[in-house]
Amino acid sequence: MATVRETCAAAKAASRTLANTDSTTKDAALRAAADLLEVRTPEILAANERDLAAAQEAGTPDAILDRLRLDGGRIRGIADGLRQVVALPDPVGEVVAGWRLPNGLQVTKVRVPLGVVAMVYEARPNVTVDAAGLCIKSGNACVLRGSSTAQLTNRVLADVMREALTATGLPADAVCLVDDPSRDSVQELMEARGLVDLLIPRGGAGLIERVVSGSRVPVVETGVGNCHVYVDVAADLAKALDIVLNAKVQRPSVCNAAESLLVHQGIADEFLPKAVDALRAAGVELVGDARVREVVDMPLATEADLGAEFLDLKMSIAVVEDVGAAIDHIARYGTLHTEAIVTEDRAAARRFTAEVDAAAVMVNASTRLTDGEQFGFGAEIGISTQKTHARGPMGLPELTSVKYVVEGDGQIRR
Amino acid sequence: MATVRETCAAAKAASRTLANTDSTTKDAALRAAADLLEVRTPEILAANERDLAAAQEAGTPDAILDRLRLDGGRIRGIADGLRQVVALPDPVGEVVAGWRLPNGLQVTKVRVPLGVVAMVYEARPNVTVDAAGLCIKSGNACVLRGSSTAQLTNRVLADVMREALTATGLPADAVCLVDDPSRDSVQELMEARGLVDLLIPRGGAGLIERVVSGSRVPVVETGVGNCHVYVDVAADLAKALDIVLNAKVQRPSVCNAAESLLVHQGIADEFLPKAVDALRAAGVELVGDARVREVVDMPLATEADLGAEFLDLKMSIAVVEDVGAAIDHIARYGTLHTEAIVTEDRAAARRFTAEVDAAAVMVNASTRLTDGEQFGFGAEIGISTQKTHARGPMGLPELTSVKYVVEGDGQIRR
Repeated sequence: MATVRETCAAAKAASRTLANTDSTTKDAALRAAADLLEVRTPEILAANERDLAAAQEAGTPDAILDRLRLDGGRIRGIADGLRQVVALPDPVGEVVAGWRLPNGLQVTKVRVPLGVVAMVYEARPNVTVDAAGLCIKSGNACVLRGSSTAQLTNRVLADVMREALTATGLPADAVCLVDDPSRDSVQELMEARGLVDLLIPRGGAGLIERVVSGSRVPVVETGVGNCHVYVDVAADLAKALDIVLNAKVQRPSVCNAAESLLVHQGIADEFLPKAVDALRAAGVELVGDARVREVVDMPLATEADLGAEFLDLKMSIAVVEDVGAAIDHIARYGTLHTEAIVTEDRAAARRFTAEVDAAAVMVNASTRLTDGEQFGFGAEIGISTQKTHARGPMGLPELTSVKYVVEGDGQIRR
Repeated sequence: MATVRETCAAAKAASRTLANTDSTTKDAALRAAADLLEVRTPEILAANERDLAAAQEAGTPDAILDRLRLDGGRIRGIADGLRQVVALPDPVGEVVAGWRLPNGLQVTKVRVPLGVVAMVYEARPNVTVDAAGLCIKSGNACVLRGSSTAQLTNRVLADVMREALTATGLPADAVCLVDDPSRDSVQELMEARGLVDLLIPRGGAGLIERVVSGSRVPVVETGVGNCHVYVDVAADLAKALDIVLNAKVQRPSVCNAAESLLVHQGIADEFLPKAVDALRAAGVELVGDARVREVVDMPLATEADLGAEFLDLKMSIAVVEDVGAAIDHIARYGTLHTEAIVTEDRAAARRFTAEVDAAAVMVNASTRLTDGEQFGFGAEIGISTQKTHARGPMGLPELTSVKYVVEGDGQIRR
């Protein structure tokens, strides 16, 4: 069994080859992997059965079992995902900028792979293939550390990717699965300075906080979203109701679902009863501040409620004085993910989009639309909620760096 | 005396105003600061005298005293630096990309300030003004933690910046100096999650390693450069000699100076004696590998020598088999800063620029040319040697993030 450091070193060595592999070859590897996934479906399902049986025996909750479970349809979906990545443009080699200096030097800023991308994630085995596919396309080697619950499934899926790489003449170590999916292995990835160029945690707030706080290698913080919908006094209330409902209930378990509703005091009497009825009818548990409770009865929202990412059919509501108060509230409780305003007032929309600090600011649209596929990136490796490197949905370009190529004919520094 | 956390919180509050301040106002603040620096020169020099006297008493080396020392000319230079920043384009508000989605949503990716930029640096007091100026121009608040040796000087310089901000109607806390310049204050900056958006260490390898390894806030790793010049078999040897000498001796104490010379075996007999004579005549101490010593006598280069950033008139030399061996050597010993090839062979240049992993790869030019001012950025806050967020010389755009503004008329997720 390889140590995490040995695994990272193998990936680093492979990354040098992958960084200089042309798109045609990388695409061939992705196509081969998609085909192999279908050919080896029985083997994948057998491994998945064993993971599921062990998880069931350990008393794993049904929701996690469902994420863990594969079937023929899901595997076909994963394979089709790889084929969609083939169709995306290769970001590597893009000339981002270029200019000639007064001394005659030609400067070209060109997009290059990061090198080794490491990823820590939870029970969904599809992430193994999705992440590997995006890394291969962007010329990166990857080190994958999935959940121990999915380890047998992940092993077969990683082997399929590695077989496809080998069949295409590329180094198998461009896709490495960490052998030991323990808690310690996350720590070792966090300490792999010089071997891991970017570490991406995907999962619950606890995992993300641990990795972001303790990592000695560069990290992208993903995914925690206490997203607000602010319904302005100048809102079209029919649109507002649609947007609030969609943002809260269309898929409450994900990071771009809304957790908090802010309502302008000028429309609270009219809008709140309608919104509360509709949300309750959809099964949403509501908590409100004192001013909300003057209009509709509900339990009092605590400070913790206002700051919470429920990831469930629960929502906090507050009444605010105006758009400025909404912006202040979001500055205090938001998590820099996605914030939405519903308004027909141009000045309010302009101020909200300018002053709210978030990866995405929506005007008259659902927070659920912050998403790599929705944005047209074709695929997404996560949604960054930090401000450095990448912000918002991360597609292929966010898995790259740049390099300055400077060409001269003997220039020196005077 | 404010704690570091209080200082960061004050900067964070000010950053909200600065993020939405127009260029005209920010430029007015910079001009006011430049003028005030000249008006308050006697006060600055008096504080500097006290710092110098204390440093001398403490037995501080002359090289550091020289960095610490200000005079009328240096202060005018610092003020002119601010005026040059006025002339640079404001990166904030630049629309980086934009498109319309099939559902009619208009997506605009716009450049925004990071928020609060913290900087830890050593004895040079000019960094206090340079960093504050770049941060103001890019709409960021800054928290500055200089060396204790320069604290009295830094205090007056920071007060000048704050007075200029106030005079322009901007919050003084957009420029904050940490009151207590102790080692602990660096640790507190490293832990200011939610208050510091980017932490930039500038100084020796020890400081940088400490900050990059231990920080819980996003960091840009700057400056360590074990830069190589590889002289290929197809090099113009006169150009090669100029470039090697310039890269090593023009300013040996900085990160883009060359530390190691690689020579193709096919020209070692011809080039090495010339290069060694010229380098020794310039006062450079040389160490070489076994194959170098077959041609010219010198002490043996240890593994540590090959990996060292000497920052001094010292250089290691190795003979390599070909361009591939040079690339392998650099992959082993380089620090991803700047690497140069001297060659007239198009294929060798193409391979070197493609395969060498560094922030800047030079063809027939001195490593000393990797620099914000040389690249035409007008100013530089540091040179990033990491691959995420920014790579190479960092100008104003590297002090920004992006925000997605998404405008619709009721779109929801289906």
